[in-house]
Amino acid sequence: MAKSPDRNEAFGWAANDKSGVLSPFHFSRRENGDNDVTVKILFCGVCHSDLHIIRNEWGNARYPIIPGHEIVGIATKVGKNVTGFKEGDRVGVGVIIGSCQSCDSCHQDLENYCPQVVYTYNSPSSDGTRNQGGYSDKIVVDHRFVLRFPDGLPSDSGAPLLCSGITVYSPMKYYGMAEGKGKHLGVSGLGGLGHIAVKIGKAFGLKVTVISRSPEKEREAIDKLGADSFLVTSDSQKMKDAIGTMDFVLDTVSADHSLMPLFSLLKVNGKLVTVGLPEKPLLLPVFPLAAGRKMVGGSMIGGMKETQEMLDFCAKHNIVADIELIKMSDINSAMERLVKSDVRYRFVIDVANSLNPAQGRL
Amino acid sequence: MAKSPDRNEAFGWAANDKSGVLSPFHFSRRENGDNDVTVKILFCGVCHSDLHIIRNEWGNARYPIIPGHEIVGIATKVGKNVTGFKEGDRVGVGVIIGSCQSCDSCHQDLENYCPQVVYTYNSPSSDGTRNQGGYSDKIVVDHRFVLRFPDGLPSDSGAPLLCSGITVYSPMKYYGMAEGKGKHLGVSGLGGLGHIAVKIGKAFGLKVTVISRSPEKEREAIDKLGADSFLVTSDSQKMKDAIGTMDFVLDTVSADHSLMPLFSLLKVNGKLVTVGLPEKPLLLPVFPLAAGRKMVGGSMIGGMKETQEMLDFCAKHNIVADIELIKMSDINSAMERLVKSDVRYRFVIDVANSLNPAQGRL
Repeated sequence: MAKSPDRNEAFGWAANDKSGVLSPFHFSRRENGDNDVTVKILFCGVCHSDLHIIRNEWGNARYPIIPGHEIVGIATKVGKNVTGFKEGDRVGVGVIIGSCQSCDSCHQDLENYCPQVVYTYNSPSSDGTRNQGGYSDKIVVDHRFVLRFPDGLPSDSGAPLLCSGITVYSPMKYYGMAEGKGKHLGVSGLGGLGHIAVKIGKAFGLKVTVISRSPEKEREAIDKLGADSFLVTSDSQKMKDAIGTMDFVLDTVSADHSLMPLFSLLKVNGKLVTVGLPEKPLLLPVFPLAAGRKMVGGSMIGGMKETQEMLDFCAKHNIVADIELIKMSDINSAMERLVKSDVRYRFVIDVANSLNPAQGRL
Repeated sequence: MAKSPDRNEAFGWAANDKSGVLSPFHFSRRENGDNDVTVKILFCGVCHSDLHIIRNEWGNARYPIIPGHEIVGIATKVGKNVTGFKEGDRVGVGVIIGSCQSCDSCHQDLENYCPQVVYTYNSPSSDGTRNQGGYSDKIVVDHRFVLRFPDGLPSDSGAPLLCSGITVYSPMKYYGMAEGKGKHLGVSGLGGLGHIAVKIGKAFGLKVTVISRSPEKEREAIDKLGADSFLVTSDSQKMKDAIGTMDFVLDTVSADHSLMPLFSLLKVNGKLVTVGLPEKPLLLPVFPLAAGRKMVGGSMIGGMKETQEMLDFCAKHNIVADIELIKMSDINSAMERLVKSDVRYRFVIDVANSLNPAQGRL
């Protein structure tokens, strides 16, 4: 394919069918408009949603799909209307890159709940094509959806904050955990979301207990992540002793599971917040909800203002993801490991150093 | 049975097995202690819980059971430590008559969530017997669980407030509806709980829409109860038009039902509060919860302080239940009608005028 001067050529790795296998793919981005920032991508985190979508597990895949929405890079072009960024700035792009800017949600800085929200990939773009994500060399994004990446926050281990960080930070704030100093938070599931929730919970001054079915994670949860205690769900005596001891439970488990044990851990007025997005409905037992005035709340990522706040908060408190840095060519085996939860706790692709545009050329 | 001078003889109608059929029953109450108030019962509301329990549908029945926990009467004896009540006062007794008085819940005026809460009937009493409820001539209750029945609140139509009133008032306050003037509340199910929720919702200044599968209730909901609008769940076009319009939904339905349509009616940050206590778990779809940061909350009756506040609020706003007054001897046919929801909206037993202690004597 000959280079065409009027096209903004780009290169990444795309899935072409529901096998989800990713392979080199040449495509084009839109030209940098007056409101846009073009970002040279340095690193991109590998989110479980990427896997769900490229395998069409949520039923909405439109191939080819270049996934990736935990993007850190350098601004290489800024449009003339852009005031917050300049060339050379380190920036982040997360899960969303557009919204209507005029609905109630947008007016409340909750672009993530805008009915016309535009996702970073597998979402229609303004020119009618599908957007493509961060497993690629560059991306062109409206400046209102670009984030300042704070000094001191590493580009590689900071990248996952753009999805998994805000996914836990936003509900932790909304449901009252940020003002809950000394209160007791249970984090159910210790994966990409859970391990960051532990760190943010500690930064909020909470007592944090990890609730997990994997006893082998105990040492790491306490020594490395800073959790105060660890509760193995299969230990019925310890689960019994923990009944009614928690003010909050943040449930990050995406597999089908019972909410009953989690409800029982909560105190009166306790809050169970679910961010794991299981595909099938969970069973909601109403008696345990009523007998203790408990609640279950949902949440989905966060708005742009709060995402920036979260990045600044994490920079201040030295919160980053624990990552395994991989090359672009490792992505398919990384996805296989992700299926088995065999990662502690987030893969991040070293995009700039491992994406080879010679690959995939005709 | 000869009268024994050392027993506090009492008389009521009890169920003796899971048929739930009620019949005359002589028993004894404890003597009025220093902290007790003896109440001559005038009226007692018929709650759906009464039916569940006498038929052992919650699996915890201990026969014989005299049900009834919406009791209005006159104080006829007060113990020497009792300061808030004197003989001749009109008083109320609701769902609970005891708690530990020392746990976190009790210290927060949430005796209803005390792990040692004592229910008005079918609960162990301090002397090891089972408590018996308000389908009877009198009851002896610790003064801390007796309520002042405000002047101006009728004894008959005010009685159901003691359970159904507080069951809706407490969560409406806790989940923010009392400060929600101008906001939009959907009340799902128009029965004993729902019809009072409509009235309280209006008194809080909310826009109230009744959500019902019974189109024939529309006229009454609007003209008589004061609802602003009526939504028939089978009208798919109107249900579609109502998507995303409500700030709160109070779900009073106790039958198994889908939460999906109720979630869809809620705006972003909308709250679904369930007080209907279905026996089986409901299906909780997690995506609709997340996509709009919605929540489902439970609640169970209320504490003593808040129950008093609710009675005073209802007296001030002329809120009573719409009732059908029955005689004690009508109770079994009333229960049959209750099964079919054939009552608008609450049966109340005219206890003092229809209980005949000559019945049931050996």
